[in-house]
Amino acid sequence: MGRPRTPLIDRERITTAALELIDETGDFGMVRVARRLGVQTGSLYHHVQGRDGVIELVRARLASAIRTEMFAELPWDEAMAAWARSYRAAFAAHPRVIPLVMISPVRSPLVLAQYEQAVRSLLESGFAMNDVMKVIIAMDNLVMGSALDLAAPDTMWEPADHTSTPLLAQALAVEPEGRGDAAFELALDACLTRFRTMAGDGGTAA
Amino acid sequence: MGRPRTPLIDRERITTAALELIDETGDFGMVRVARRLGVQTGSLYHHVQGRDGVIELVRARLASAIRTEMFAELPWDEAMAAWARSYRAAFAAHPRVIPLVMISPVRSPLVLAQYEQAVRSLLESGFAMNDVMKVIIAMDNLVMGSALDLAAPDTMWEPADHTSTPLLAQALAVEPEGRGDAAFELALDACLTRFRTMAGDGGTAA
Repeated sequence: MGRPRTPLIDRERITTAALELIDETGDFGMVRVARRLGVQTGSLYHHVQGRDGVIELVRARLASAIRTEMFAELPWDEAMAAWARSYRAAFAAHPRVIPLVMISPVRSPLVLAQYEQAVRSLLESGFAMNDVMKVIIAMDNLVMGSALDLAAPDTMWEPADHTSTPLLAQALAVEPEGRGDAAFELALDACLTRFRTMAGDGGTAA
Repeated sequence: MGRPRTPLIDRERITTAALELIDETGDFGMVRVARRLGVQTGSLYHHVQGRDGVIELVRARLASAIRTEMFAELPWDEAMAAWARSYRAAFAAHPRVIPLVMISPVRSPLVLAQYEQAVRSLLESGFAMNDVMKVIIAMDNLVMGSALDLAAPDTMWEPADHTSTPLLAQALAVEPEGRGDAAFELALDACLTRFRTMAGDGGTAA
């Protein structure tokens, strides 16, 4: 019958193992990834370019759930809202990945292509070239912060008693369901409203 | 001469050890904190209430650099801008703390008192009670995402070549110095502009 043709490891399995380690411990190491897969550490290097390469695989895994095809189909602001919502959902499922990808340069071809789509949409909508990255980074930051918040516990403020924070207690008491969604949508709407004043600008906004 | 009066460990030293571990590895454990301090793990529990207690000490350490006294002195929007800027700077110095504090409930009296100040300022400025937490959480999310970005490398997008992402390459080429600051200020201004329409609202904004 011969040996099974499936290799013991491949990039998908390496990605899954690293993602599990990050979810559990906040980080990963090549040795721990190899141990989890039951292989020698050196074998990993036949498949990935070290730690940075693994971070890019994890980034690409999460980004594969992010929708950017709308940038070619919808007005830039509708596309950006859909992008931001799917982007937030993708990373909220793995909040501890967030600091790792945010402090490591983007090299994943898939993710770079997603940014290219966003840049093209903004340029075609008349944004000034030197405003484009500012707008995209502002959205990135809002999305990542809001993704972390989506992973927060339902009760985020827990005073020992409310005597020293009576107004916070009142504000928390009337907090509606889905506070995280409402806060995200409020900031998203605020940003898109501001960005609309920059579309068709052709010059430099402040 | 007697023994030195300084105890081997105290809350400050525990906080420092945990913060160092988080900066280095993305997380901490009670055993590793004790090992770093050269004490038995059990000794830690005379000073802190377990892992959650240590997270609160770390949160309070960083929050001690956040300015909220302006909420009693300045118009709410100026105070909120100053709060957001100092808040971002405090956490940007320790980006890997961010996911830990964002997925753990706030119990630090210092931090709760800071939120109380913000809530009071917004209520006195006429924000509706059920808008207050939404506004504060929106700012929290923007600040934390932008703090992570401040810890990012200068060159954040690194295509292998620019042939498949020509527009991204152009947008990056004209990116000004301090892209992170400009993106943060843009989103901050967008949010404050939107929030101003809610001040004095007394009712419920969308």
